[in-house]
Amino acid sequence: MHQKPLILITNDDSFRANGIKQLVDFVKDMARIVVVAPKNPMSAKSHSITVTEPLWIHKISEDDNITWYHLNGTPADCVKFAIHEVLKNKPDLVLSGINHGPNYSVSQFYSGTVAGAIEGTLNGIPSVAFSLNDFDSEADFSKTREYIRQITRNVLQNPLPTNVCLNVNFPNANTKTKGLKICRQTHGKWVEKFIEQSHPWAGKYYWLSGTFTNFEPDAGDNDVWAVENGFASVLPLNIDMTDYKFMESIKHWERIE
Amino acid sequence: MHQKPLILITNDDSFRANGIKQLVDFVKDMARIVVVAPKNPMSAKSHSITVTEPLWIHKISEDDNITWYHLNGTPADCVKFAIHEVLKNKPDLVLSGINHGPNYSVSQFYSGTVAGAIEGTLNGIPSVAFSLNDFDSEADFSKTREYIRQITRNVLQNPLPTNVCLNVNFPNANTKTKGLKICRQTHGKWVEKFIEQSHPWAGKYYWLSGTFTNFEPDAGDNDVWAVENGFASVLPLNIDMTDYKFMESIKHWERIE
Repeated sequence: MHQKPLILITNDDSFRANGIKQLVDFVKDMARIVVVAPKNPMSAKSHSITVTEPLWIHKISEDDNITWYHLNGTPADCVKFAIHEVLKNKPDLVLSGINHGPNYSVSQFYSGTVAGAIEGTLNGIPSVAFSLNDFDSEADFSKTREYIRQITRNVLQNPLPTNVCLNVNFPNANTKTKGLKICRQTHGKWVEKFIEQSHPWAGKYYWLSGTFTNFEPDAGDNDVWAVENGFASVLPLNIDMTDYKFMESIKHWERIE
Repeated sequence: MHQKPLILITNDDSFRANGIKQLVDFVKDMARIVVVAPKNPMSAKSHSITVTEPLWIHKISEDDNITWYHLNGTPADCVKFAIHEVLKNKPDLVLSGINHGPNYSVSQFYSGTVAGAIEGTLNGIPSVAFSLNDFDSEADFSKTREYIRQITRNVLQNPLPTNVCLNVNFPNANTKTKGLKICRQTHGKWVEKFIEQSHPWAGKYYWLSGTFTNFEPDAGDNDVWAVENGFASVLPLNIDMTDYKFMESIKHWERIE
């Protein structure tokens, strides 16, 4: 009898987040599930790894099909620890999310959820990050269900190229999703706003805040456009960041004295 | 009179590290320098940003040409804070480093130093990360001097494309550097080793450790090969991570019910 595939699930909002519980629920009949998720929220921790603090793993629950753990680390730590210590082997798929809040455009650089998927890819495992364009901890994830199942099925059946993971963003929970849209990364940036406040006696301090600015609001083929227009964006990310074209144009640097 | 360019310098080993002091020293006659560096070591913090802790900035010293600050955040925080609150404007160049230890191949995903350069690029500023293949805090950086000056001059004269930063790695301090080599990113990975230890009464915990494995040790055109063969590798990184080719091959997902 063919054994069910094994899916490793992580996120950055911690094992307590509704998003990861929903993700497990959506795919639990398709595979055996092992969850290794951060003990504490790790939003905006990017691809950090924990090298100066000890890591503690805790098994939360276990049944025939699903085992839950938390680890006091980042999503990248969780994926590494799961492969090397919990599973002692590679899973068939890494899913990360569902994040509370979007991770499109350059937000993926800051996102722990996307880093969880990239870490899977670095380990040679097909990996997908899922995010919902809604920061509400009680957001309704139900409209993402069929799309997540479809993408999971597709990736299990046709593994991704070695260097590629998928970054999937869903529209706001109140939007009726029109379908999947295969997208490129939006050219945009976060415009920071540092909020200055005063400590009672220790002087000024700042809170990092900001808003996302889209440099190409009219383009119809990128992930921000897709999400804002009611589609679920599917962005293939290649972990080889080399700009091969620009390499050629600075090749002459090798000859400069 | 033409004003000197303005260079923002950061790193991830903190303002106390020898590497950043050397970097400032190497380029101080080429530009006005503002340093905004982490107060504490931020190695392996990747592109983390600090959103749940207040940020405190401290001016350490100032003379005609060089101003030093530390910030209790990550390299990405330092670049953001420098642009928006310290300089109130964009510098002409962001330099990050010199890191104590290499940041080639996939190590760039974990590196705070490389993230400092990427953050500069996200803000539309030409940016370069420098790392030395030597973890010794007393390492000799002197052999990197002329290469750093050459690269800095090149980038000031011919700004990088909007989406591209440079990740530069120097060989071990004891190696005579043969020259610059324009490189692609090495296909490799960190193979983790979790060291299990026991707390007196609280049970098992783990230290994340590991070694780098090169999947293509014989390739002569990538950054690990260059550094191991005595060259300073110059890797152009594009912040658009979209895999355009693979996009086409999953376009049919849009039609699947």
